[in-house]
Amino acid sequence: MFKLKAKLIDMETGGTAVVTVFEEFAKANDLHMMERVLVQFDSKQLVAVLDTSEKMIGPGEIGIFEDVWRKLAIKEGDTVEITPIGKPESTKYIRKKMDHEELDDNEIKQIVKDIVDEKLTDVELVAFVSASYMAGLNLAETASLTKAIVDTGGKLNLKKKPILDKHSVGGVPGNRVTMVIVPIIASLGLTIPKTSSRAITSPAGTADTMEVLADVSFSIDELTEIVKKTNGCIVWGGAINLAAADDKLIRVRNPLSLDPEGMMLASIMAKKLAVGATHIVFDLPIGEEAKLQTLGEARHLEREFIRLGEMFKLNIKTVVTDGNEPIGFGVGPLLEARDVLWLLKKDKRGPADLRSKATMLTGSLLELCGKAKEGTGQAIAEKQIENGQALKKMLEIIEAQGGDPKVNPDSLQPGQYTLDYKAERTGRITKLSNAAITKIARASGAPADQESGVYLHKKFNNNVKEGEKIFTVYSKSERNIDRVVKLIQELNPIVIT
Amino acid sequence: MFKLKAKLIDMETGGTAVVTVFEEFAKANDLHMMERVLVQFDSKQLVAVLDTSEKMIGPGEIGIFEDVWRKLAIKEGDTVEITPIGKPESTKYIRKKMDHEELDDNEIKQIVKDIVDEKLTDVELVAFVSASYMAGLNLAETASLTKAIVDTGGKLNLKKKPILDKHSVGGVPGNRVTMVIVPIIASLGLTIPKTSSRAITSPAGTADTMEVLADVSFSIDELTEIVKKTNGCIVWGGAINLAAADDKLIRVRNPLSLDPEGMMLASIMAKKLAVGATHIVFDLPIGEEAKLQTLGEARHLEREFIRLGEMFKLNIKTVVTDGNEPIGFGVGPLLEARDVLWLLKKDKRGPADLRSKATMLTGSLLELCGKAKEGTGQAIAEKQIENGQALKKMLEIIEAQGGDPKVNPDSLQPGQYTLDYKAERTGRITKLSNAAITKIARASGAPADQESGVYLHKKFNNNVKEGEKIFTVYSKSERNIDRVVKLIQELNPIVIT
Repeated sequence: MFKLKAKLIDMETGGTAVVTVFEEFAKANDLHMMERVLVQFDSKQLVAVLDTSEKMIGPGEIGIFEDVWRKLAIKEGDTVEITPIGKPESTKYIRKKMDHEELDDNEIKQIVKDIVDEKLTDVELVAFVSASYMAGLNLAETASLTKAIVDTGGKLNLKKKPILDKHSVGGVPGNRVTMVIVPIIASLGLTIPKTSSRAITSPAGTADTMEVLADVSFSIDELTEIVKKTNGCIVWGGAINLAAADDKLIRVRNPLSLDPEGMMLASIMAKKLAVGATHIVFDLPIGEEAKLQTLGEARHLEREFIRLGEMFKLNIKTVVTDGNEPIGFGVGPLLEARDVLWLLKKDKRGPADLRSKATMLTGSLLELCGKAKEGTGQAIAEKQIENGQALKKMLEIIEAQGGDPKVNPDSLQPGQYTLDYKAERTGRITKLSNAAITKIARASGAPADQESGVYLHKKFNNNVKEGEKIFTVYSKSERNIDRVVKLIQELNPIVIT
Repeated sequence: MFKLKAKLIDMETGGTAVVTVFEEFAKANDLHMMERVLVQFDSKQLVAVLDTSEKMIGPGEIGIFEDVWRKLAIKEGDTVEITPIGKPESTKYIRKKMDHEELDDNEIKQIVKDIVDEKLTDVELVAFVSASYMAGLNLAETASLTKAIVDTGGKLNLKKKPILDKHSVGGVPGNRVTMVIVPIIASLGLTIPKTSSRAITSPAGTADTMEVLADVSFSIDELTEIVKKTNGCIVWGGAINLAAADDKLIRVRNPLSLDPEGMMLASIMAKKLAVGATHIVFDLPIGEEAKLQTLGEARHLEREFIRLGEMFKLNIKTVVTDGNEPIGFGVGPLLEARDVLWLLKKDKRGPADLRSKATMLTGSLLELCGKAKEGTGQAIAEKQIENGQALKKMLEIIEAQGGDPKVNPDSLQPGQYTLDYKAERTGRITKLSNAAITKIARASGAPADQESGVYLHKKFNNNVKEGEKIFTVYSKSERNIDRVVKLIQELNPIVIT
């Protein structure tokens, strides 16, 4: 055990806590970079990773980053104790997986616990992700991982059944079916506590889009109240920390675009289990530029969802959908929220493809939980839009989530700077690239600027006349429009033949 | 491209360069954590990884760590430009290896180049090490890696042949054969430019031990001069940057104790090729607590060294040796250096086991390069000790490396605080644990404190009387002796039956 004088560093490290000691001091005391130490101050303690420095830190000092000094309430000059401790047990299990061995329930539980407790370094996390990717996780391991993620995260306990849920596999811009499905289901008296994600590489996640109309960050207690009142919600899953371990794994998965299937399945399923879902419909869009590119891939994933669902006694249905072009007209938080409201208001500007896809998925969900006979679900869903109940429920949910229930889609104004992309010739649109529209919408400012995005006047297979507008780009910033101009030249987003 | 005002941060990040921007600024401009940016200032540029901060950095600012501001000569408040650039090509090849595919020469070359240029993040390095460990590197890949490491590191070009070399696989404390082999070989007029490592987990590396007697850090030009003058040297390989890529890989391998065989082979062989070695003897000690634990493991490694050596037209011989107990009496830099000098001076305190092992390996090397007939090499080596030529050469090398050629082993004083470990009963020593002696020597202060360590009065299989001294621990610090007392109670280093 060593006593050192705290030197506060006004910076966060993020991830694992780090403390820094003088290099010569470390050497003389056989302390090593990346070694773990228990940091103790005034009856409080945490585990940190040791770093060494030649300059910033003097011989008797210890450099403490903001994450640590805040947690332990350390002030400049305080005496802090550090004690070297071994590696967490879970590093052995990570090593075991690297040796292509199967991990049991307890081993995976321990890894996930150490991830959540921030006891594993990035190096160890990457090793775990790499090993899971290369050696694969079998069904039992995937189930263990799912369970461990659920057990270490927040949980919603509504004490009723059935709890309905849906999940769309990604890669299709504008796919805001959740915002239509939830009010329809809730308007039928069924419970659907939907948590959604924010955009990572897309122009808008459902949480970003809902945020145009209402708050999306709530505690579990607040969420419980909202759902009790309205039967449904559309909130950001990140706020209730449903899958803390998963978020940390994703941080190291992204730079290498590594998506170990078992981790992806566990990540999705854990979020469903965390809200207590009993009946889930999976939307599997297939498209050249979507996440799933072939029917074979979709069928494989379908099987995996069903097998994993069976382990948790979940009722699961999968629906393969068309992911070849954006859904709806708007791409970007505000434009997508406007589409949804137009649709629910039966305004003629409401996108037909979004409506038919959403009611079809809703129908499947109703049939899955026995609230509709086979083949009758979609008609029931359509009726809830026609009779205005879905809109009414949506406004209730918006109000329950702190938004304005009198919201008018026509007062949702997209960014003031615009750019029209016009048909270069008369003909039929034979390509409308998801990837290009995504890039253009992001360059315009989405999702950070809600008002930015792309509005499609024409869609795949539509006939167009030369000079006719195909899409309009909206942005809050003129500079972004300049970027978009260049990007469009590179991307060739539309093909007319 | 973005222009930002430099805010200098008085800290090094080590590894990949990092710059920090305001979180909201990053979001608004679609810049992401861990994304690579080209940092430009005043006609100079480098690649850095982007970090984001909510606090330390303001909206129009960029936080620049010491490694970056030094290299680009940036001063506080300077306007710095950053431009997002894609991932280096080598990330694709790392990904390819993760998909269990073989990498070709150019792909491995590119990975190593990007490692040396610090274009890869730790996350990517770990992924490469993990993939190499899990999928393995075949002979061609190992050869490519060896070549790439050699090509990106420093090289010694002595313009003569043969160039002799040796390598001992680790895990045996006190194994200072290099310091006996080099002077014998050099005294015979043969060239042996030996580079050695410092201790990482052991109580002393050869470089640490030689440093008791002379300098060990030299530039390539200085090294060339030393070897021209004396035919040999015993220096620290790290100083001449023989394998820059390798050092960076080792940094991420250590925390997980990952030692992908192909990387280990390439690392060793690259260092031999970098000094222009033509004839190499490999010492493969086997012992319960050595790196190689079984004859099978040694035979496997033997085969791999020979196969890889053939790819580079090297003449290789491997010798399996006993790694069950420490070699010599001293364990720790000064104590080991004293053993070596006593041995070369034919003092009766010179350890017989170190002498016979060193002359045997020297003999193999002489036979391998045709300077001795099969079966006569060891006798030639012994003669060079007997006739005083080896000692004379060692003192020449010490002088050429800036040490005192009049050094007297009896004036090498170990640490003033001591602890004697005495036999608890009369009997025969049936266990003398390498691992325990290593831990005790490190706890005493080695290798950071040269004067600390363990001196063995008795060795494996020796008979002892109750109360007789088995070993003495030396340290510069009384506190370390206290630590050693506790450690000995835990470790049970000696068994007498």
